[in-house]
Amino acid sequence: MKGFASDNWAGTHPKIMEALIQANSGHEPAYGNDSYTTRAQEVFRKIFGEQSTTYFVYNGTGANILALDALTNSFNSVICSEHAHVHVDECGGLEKHTSAKLIAIPSANGKLYPGDLKNFVKAARYPHQSVPAVITISQSTEPGTVYQLHEIEALATLAHEHGLYLHVDGARIANAAASLGVDFKTMITDTGVDVLSFGGTKNGLMFGEAVVFLKPGLEKHFELYRKQGMQLASKMRFIAAQFMALLDDDLWLKNAAHSNKMAQKLKDELLKFNRIEISQPVESNGVWAILPDDLARKMQENGFFYPWDESKKEYRLMCSWDTTVEDIERLVQSI
Amino acid sequence: MKGFASDNWAGTHPKIMEALIQANSGHEPAYGNDSYTTRAQEVFRKIFGEQSTTYFVYNGTGANILALDALTNSFNSVICSEHAHVHVDECGGLEKHTSAKLIAIPSANGKLYPGDLKNFVKAARYPHQSVPAVITISQSTEPGTVYQLHEIEALATLAHEHGLYLHVDGARIANAAASLGVDFKTMITDTGVDVLSFGGTKNGLMFGEAVVFLKPGLEKHFELYRKQGMQLASKMRFIAAQFMALLDDDLWLKNAAHSNKMAQKLKDELLKFNRIEISQPVESNGVWAILPDDLARKMQENGFFYPWDESKKEYRLMCSWDTTVEDIERLVQSI
Amino acid sequence: MKGFASDNWAGTHPKIMEALIQANSGHEPAYGNDSYTTRAQEVFRKIFGEQSTTYFVYNGTGANILALDALTNSFNSVICSEHAHVHVDECGGLEKHTSAKLIAIPSANGKLYPGDLKNFVKAARYPHQSVPAVITISQSTEPGTVYQLHEIEALATLAHEHGLYLHVDGARIANAAASLGVDFKTMITDTGVDVLSFGGTKNGLMFGEAVVFLKPGLEKHFELYRKQGMQLASKMRFIAAQFMALLDDDLWLKNAAHSNKMAQKLKDELLKFNRIEISQPVESNGVWAILPDDLARKMQENGFFYPWDESKKEYRLMCSWDTTVEDIERLVQSI
Amino acid sequence: MKGFASDNWAGTHPKIMEALIQANSGHEPAYGNDSYTTRAQEVFRKIFGEQSTTYFVYNGTGANILALDALTNSFNSVICSEHAHVHVDECGGLEKHTSAKLIAIPSANGKLYPGDLKNFVKAARYPHQSVPAVITISQSTEPGTVYQLHEIEALATLAHEHGLYLHVDGARIANAAASLGVDFKTMITDTGVDVLSFGGTKNGLMFGEAVVFLKPGLEKHFELYRKQGMQLASKMRFIAAQFMALLDDDLWLKNAAHSNKMAQKLKDELLKFNRIEISQPVESNGVWAILPDDLARKMQENGFFYPWDESKKEYRLMCSWDTTVEDIERLVQSI
Repeated sequence: MKGFASDNWAGTHPKIMEALIQANSGHEPAYGNDSYTTRAQEVFRKIFGEQSTTYFVYNGTGANILALDALTNSFNSVICSEHAHVHVDECGGLEKHTSAKLIAIPSANGKLYPGDLKNFVKAARYPHQSVPAVITISQSTEPGTVYQLHEIEALATLAHEHGLYLHVDGARIANAAASLGVDFKTMITDTGVDVLSFGGTKNGLMFGEAVVFLKPGLEKHFELYRKQGMQLASKMRFIAAQFMALLDDDLWLKNAAHSNKMAQKLKDELLKFNRIEISQPVESNGVWAILPDDLARKMQENGFFYPWDESKKEYRLMCSWDTTVEDIERLVQSI
Repeated sequence: MKGFASDNWAGTHPKIMEALIQANSGHEPAYGNDSYTTRAQEVFRKIFGEQSTTYFVYNGTGANILALDALTNSFNSVICSEHAHVHVDECGGLEKHTSAKLIAIPSANGKLYPGDLKNFVKAARYPHQSVPAVITISQSTEPGTVYQLHEIEALATLAHEHGLYLHVDGARIANAAASLGVDFKTMITDTGVDVLSFGGTKNGLMFGEAVVFLKPGLEKHFELYRKQGMQLASKMRFIAAQFMALLDDDLWLKNAAHSNKMAQKLKDELLKFNRIEISQPVESNGVWAILPDDLARKMQENGFFYPWDESKKEYRLMCSWDTTVEDIERLVQSI
Repeated sequence: MKGFASDNWAGTHPKIMEALIQANSGHEPAYGNDSYTTRAQEVFRKIFGEQSTTYFVYNGTGANILALDALTNSFNSVICSEHAHVHVDECGGLEKHTSAKLIAIPSANGKLYPGDLKNFVKAARYPHQSVPAVITISQSTEPGTVYQLHEIEALATLAHEHGLYLHVDGARIANAAASLGVDFKTMITDTGVDVLSFGGTKNGLMFGEAVVFLKPGLEKHFELYRKQGMQLASKMRFIAAQFMALLDDDLWLKNAAHSNKMAQKLKDELLKFNRIEISQPVESNGVWAILPDDLARKMQENGFFYPWDESKKEYRLMCSWDTTVEDIERLVQSI
Repeated sequence: MKGFASDNWAGTHPKIMEALIQANSGHEPAYGNDSYTTRAQEVFRKIFGEQSTTYFVYNGTGANILALDALTNSFNSVICSEHAHVHVDECGGLEKHTSAKLIAIPSANGKLYPGDLKNFVKAARYPHQSVPAVITISQSTEPGTVYQLHEIEALATLAHEHGLYLHVDGARIANAAASLGVDFKTMITDTGVDVLSFGGTKNGLMFGEAVVFLKPGLEKHFELYRKQGMQLASKMRFIAAQFMALLDDDLWLKNAAHSNKMAQKLKDELLKFNRIEISQPVESNGVWAILPDDLARKMQENGFFYPWDESKKEYRLMCSWDTTVEDIERLVQSI
């Protein structure tokens, strides 16, 4: 029985599994010196532009922390939303591994706006305060909202005006692109993003994420940071092959558009109950809802999902590439 | 054309791939709360004893660094051989991530002996010197040698007499067990080892290693160290399923015994050339040899391998689970 | 011309200087093994109770970071006010040196209240979130307010109920004690504080702070943390001798009571101007005031002080052990 | 009774104490923005050349670790002698605070020679190995020897040829200069040294060391590293004033030449006993000697000193600025 706990409870998409099987032939140089990795990096270069460089890592926490490691010194700070995965869901790994400092900004919908950041992007009281170096945002955000292109652009402009970088945690970047109906280059390269954590696992991969450097030079030491950061896969062909399959024939888009559509369907169904309140705009593949205790309990029995903010009785219901209309109907019929 | 560069140039064993395919069905809780992980942990408990606890991580660097993170404070030192992977092949990740200090001991064959360590296991000049907390050894060692059981036991005794732990980097633990003809419990639990990095990738896995805590209590905070260390796989069932297949029906032993046997065959063939000198005892799945330049060049064209110590014209030739007699014959016929 | 920039712009109190001169006789064992340090530690033990242990360090940043290093693992978080020195004025040193994470709580007056902390003191979503280990407060606070005894006690109770420690940044602990009219034991030991950074430099020392562990066992590894934290003074007698002089014949109280009194005098004088607004309760040795631009400029010419929050035209005016009525009158006469 | 334990058992030279008293007048801006610091930095610039920049810190461990922090990224290694203070006497602070890795080279006399380093200065097996960034040497060395100018120059050349920096731990730099009979510029700037830890405490200061950057640009972020490294003194005038006194009228040279001379005297006296063997060349202010147990015990009762290598019955006897002929005679008469 499939539930709505998280898009990482789903398995591996059949086309991804097929790519893994195909890649499992003979010997290949280790540590990314194989032909699959070279070709997959070329695919990313076509998508994000000739000036971009892409590296593969194991997971999203690794992608975020190592991308930020490459952009910071120990005396720097990284500005994020209070909901940012790197702030609340990576067990302090950023601080431990990079020695940089996180500055968390209150945010109701998970998005940052230039107006909220103006007191934070400037270095102050040198040398007593950490020097801001990066703004990091999540696209889509942890509460499921999606930045519009001009919003990303405005943050990139603000960052660059003050000598900062803009990093995007794209664990669900495909859902955001499907939601906005734009390609990755338009959303990321053209808005001025500097570095992107490109998510794979939550969109059908078995494992694997990519770190995409959009500006030449920023990737300079990344291979060293990745190695010492325990994220250099020896049999890297198996990450690369998955990404080639995901990016081939728009599989990424089909998966993401499907899970987004399922979230809309779920929202529509839940809105039929007047005891249920939708608490965030449904813009990607999750639904945030305020549920009375009895309904929550019944629903969780028919498709598990997690509370988001227990004090408000708010829950998060995530759809994935394999969520079906039947899964949603079973959930809804329980109430 | 298969070469002898490293056992991680090989692909995924067919039975492991089959296990991945079987595990790819429906939803499973993320982050190790799935049924595969529970069962795989149970398999490890049966192998290493009821008091043991096992966790899965992505790779060997992660296994080593996080195992040592769990055993040290920042004021501690870790004693290792000068050839230790954690010292020479993990780009300073141990020092960066754990803040502990490595003390590297000269060693011709990659093994540590109690007599070499007696000046290092005692805390000295408190509080000016780092306090030794762990002896870490590799089994089999980086130069291919294998500790005898009594040698491990002697190091465990020395460590425990001084309040230190004994950690084993077992990236090639299966090759060592096959070489000694003993089971893991006899080699690890019964000799007094405290924590083991149990290798999978070099013995036929696509990815995945295990950290086995042999003594209750040492694992106390490991899940937190693993999460902040970027090594918590969301779809962990795919590591667990591989390990179950590896440990089922002695696949680990078949793979390791085969690669060991191929190394013996390779050694025997090379010994037929009086211009070639074997420079380390061949005790696991690699052959260390001194090669004249012309022979080395020709051989590398027929099955690539790396220099080990260029100043001595010493090379390392590694066999893997899929090395064949034909691969060896092709290599040898080139000279 | 003395200004109001900070209590660390003042020099060394004559009695402290006299103690330094007296201590400068012959040889003494280095690194705290001298007779001055032993005696000074005994003085602290008499003040804070037999179960306490005290160590000397160079400065307040060192005292805070190393005290918190002793109380945390890398997977822990430390809860503080958004104004906490360790959060905004130590350049990310806590995160860099200890690997722990800071959680900053909004606070208008620099004080933390149990009601604001209840969502933060509980470990959540294990192992994804940092585990809270310490609440740190400043007494007096960075904006000059002073915790009442029952307020400290309530925070200690909250901390201990959840297995956390309570740390006090006492860079201006003497001013707080003078303000409340209580001794250190009543304010710190008896309210349940676990560790205290005891400030010296801002109350007349040339340099030197103390870290006081109130509960046996917490100090266990502190000497190692201090050494590797670059805060072990070789000629430690010169810190110890200063503290003995400060704690002798209530010099600490005379200095602190004087600077507090000067702050009250300054506040009274400023309140005579209806264009000036006092923006924080004056409870220790500083005055926070909203100043029109022209007044601020004139005043700064007659006794420099810093803006606190430029967006509100709020300024901080600090008094020190050597501030005189004349200094205040000169400042006030300028407007 | 003065002993020979260490030059940091001595007190503060009277002229230094006088400078502290003179500097204790009125208010001065904190954190190095005072007039004393400006003037002391100017003195250092005159000594080391116009292109140099100097910062003050509390102690030698801080000077070394923060100098190396400024020269390294976390993926770098620092090459040192096995006797280097930063390796054996700073409790792993370098690894903890900077995240870099130390590579310790065997050395009988504490000196490094280019021939010993050629396998270590080259980056190898990118990205698996730490990238060497700095060679650090001590002048005088921990076992009391002194590098000749051409030896420093050769190390600087080797370092620069491979893109590394040369750092000098000059905790006893004055003793080395006095021994060689050269000025600091000749020994440090002109030989190509990049950064120097300039010692004060062991040559008569109460506390305080300086970090001298010889090449423009290297100091770029040092003020941030110093602040987050807990080494920014608020009342910095009291370090600066001491250094001005030390560098005025060649006090540094008088102190160092005296302690060197006392070491020669001590050596001469010990050589009169044929049961005593001098085990290192006496080139600065310490004597290393092999002592029979009975002699060692008697001598230690008449002027304490520490064993250096207990396995060889080797001891270290240090002279300081206040060691007298009488101190030496009392020691010698005991045997």
